[in-house]
Amino acid sequence: MGGIAVDEISKNVSCDIVRRTVPGVKDLPVECKILIEEYKCDIVMAIGMPGKEPIDKQCAHEASTGIITAQLMTNTHIIEVFVHEDEAKTSKELASLAEKRTREHAKNAIDLVLYPKRLIRMAGTGQRQGGKDRGPIK
Amino acid sequence: MGGIAVDEISKNVSCDIVRRTVPGVKDLPVECKILIEEYKCDIVMAIGMPGKEPIDKQCAHEASTGIITAQLMTNTHIIEVFVHEDEAKTSKELASLAEKRTREHAKNAIDLVLYPKRLIRMAGTGQRQGGKDRGPIK
Amino acid sequence: MGGIAVDEISKNVSCDIVRRTVPGVKDLPVECKILIEEYKCDIVMAIGMPGKEPIDKQCAHEASTGIITAQLMTNTHIIEVFVHEDEAKTSKELASLAEKRTREHAKNAIDLVLYPKRLIRMAGTGQRQGGKDRGPIK
Amino acid sequence: MGGIAVDEISKNVSCDIVRRTVPGVKDLPVECKILIEEYKCDIVMAIGMPGKEPIDKQCAHEASTGIITAQLMTNTHIIEVFVHEDEAKTSKELASLAEKRTREHAKNAIDLVLYPKRLIRMAGTGQRQGGKDRGPIK
Amino acid sequence: MGGIAVDEISKNVSCDIVRRTVPGVKDLPVECKILIEEYKCDIVMAIGMPGKEPIDKQCAHEASTGIITAQLMTNTHIIEVFVHEDEAKTSKELASLAEKRTREHAKNAIDLVLYPKRLIRMAGTGQRQGGKDRGPIK
Repeated sequence: MGGIAVDEISKNVSCDIVRRTVPGVKDLPVECKILIEEYKCDIVMAIGMPGKEPIDKQCAHEASTGIITAQLMTNTHIIEVFVHEDEAKTSKELASLAEKRTREHAKNAIDLVLYPKRLIRMAGTGQRQGGKDRGPIK
Repeated sequence: MGGIAVDEISKNVSCDIVRRTVPGVKDLPVECKILIEEYKCDIVMAIGMPGKEPIDKQCAHEASTGIITAQLMTNTHIIEVFVHEDEAKTSKELASLAEKRTREHAKNAIDLVLYPKRLIRMAGTGQRQGGKDRGPIK
Repeated sequence: MGGIAVDEISKNVSCDIVRRTVPGVKDLPVECKILIEEYKCDIVMAIGMPGKEPIDKQCAHEASTGIITAQLMTNTHIIEVFVHEDEAKTSKELASLAEKRTREHAKNAIDLVLYPKRLIRMAGTGQRQGGKDRGPIK
Repeated sequence: MGGIAVDEISKNVSCDIVRRTVPGVKDLPVECKILIEEYKCDIVMAIGMPGKEPIDKQCAHEASTGIITAQLMTNTHIIEVFVHEDEAKTSKELASLAEKRTREHAKNAIDLVLYPKRLIRMAGTGQRQGGKDRGPIK
Repeated sequence: MGGIAVDEISKNVSCDIVRRTVPGVKDLPVECKILIEEYKCDIVMAIGMPGKEPIDKQCAHEASTGIITAQLMTNTHIIEVFVHEDEAKTSKELASLAEKRTREHAKNAIDLVLYPKRLIRMAGTGQRQGGKDRGPIK
């Protein structure tokens, strides 16, 4: 998924990309904060694939909470891209979902930093990254 | 819902409004904090429509926790306006609920900044934004 | 409940009281912090009546977590006085419980600021504000 | 339980002890932080007996989270000594458990401040304060 | 498990190691932060074996949340190595799992500090420390 994100960003904008890998999702929050504060990144994508067991769900929850805190401490967006192992039935579907979600969030990351006004047009249209959009309510 | 909030505020007071859109509810806390610290907003409305799956509920919980932390870090109110997809049976009901809740909270936002004393009169009257009020206990 | 707290405090001590109302329990943490930091309150009572739905329980949990954080950021006590709608069977019982709990916590607030030693005598006696005390274990 | 802690500490070391009582477990985090920052305590024991209802469990969880945050804000240990009302079947058993756990944690508090090396010997031996130790795994 | 970590690190790199023991997992976050801030450790391994009861699971969750916060406050990684008592059926299996997980995470700790690029090669390969790896998705 990290490679896909790099690919999607490189296709759309010209910028420096720092890529880091950590052992598990709970190691993401501090790594994101280091990328923002020490590597001066304008935005970070936090990519992970939590397992399907209750303990994995809890780890993902703890990681998410930490990622939000890291954003508040730095006034910088961190786009969380988590794909849960039980979101798809087959390995192939999961790979496809992971790729789509990563690419859509890579575009969101670009928009947040460079074109925030583009996002307003999407508001209320029920976008769901990597899956079928919910559509607007009527 | 963002458009409705802008409409309601504009009808009631004359003020500058900054509108931003983020990819998901978990991106709201830091965006609200940026609006307060970098855009000098006196109050923020954080509007979102979480889905009905357990994972969506958890995202909403994480977002809410972050929104409260953002308020504590800035000593500024952020009015959370979340409408859960499963709060109504039909799409039409949901749209109506979303509009009512947004308008009522837009008025709350105005009162918190400009007329805090007005809110005291509502205390203990069991107000429920967008739904039937609970009424006072007797 | 706000009125009852003002009444109980006024009957027992002579002091300035600042009363504020917010739209919902999740708006309490930051308002308490503002009262401490900007209004120089020595203690705050955070009063609310969460509903009985799961979403209301979650809001109360988020509010409580925020209230604890607000205390840690200010080194000042905030007495949380929450009465859950499902703590009593009838509206009358609920009103009675709310009044008793508010009055007992108003006294606790006074003791925490003015007479901390009084509280030591109550330690381990199983006090439950507004309900039947549990009594000491033996 | 506060009295037992004072007794156990006094029997083992000579030091000043500050004792404070708060209305409920959720008032513990800020009181512990005040004891560390304003009373210059080297360590704090946070003692409480949460009830057995779900709401009590949640209060204990919120208190625990706050106690951990208080430690992180002060770089000082706070030993949490919670005895849940439903940990024992009879009132007598509960009193006995509370006393044992308090005494064992009082010794832990002393070791953490004065003899940190003593604790290393206990690592991996499956100590459970107040109950039967789990023993080492083999 | 602490001894195993010391052994694995010593076999792979030459560095100073500070070992501390705390009474329970909830005492880990502040101890890790002290090791980083006062003992100037470059990385910390937080090792614990939570029990199998619901209360133990909750303690582990609170500890994990605190460990993430400690990392965010120090911009330093803390590798959490928790082995839950119910992760294996026999005591022997549990001991084996604990040893494997500790050794693999000790290597992760070394890589994070000295060889961050090594970790990128592992990204997306579904590593699960101490158990069967999940493998990459295809």
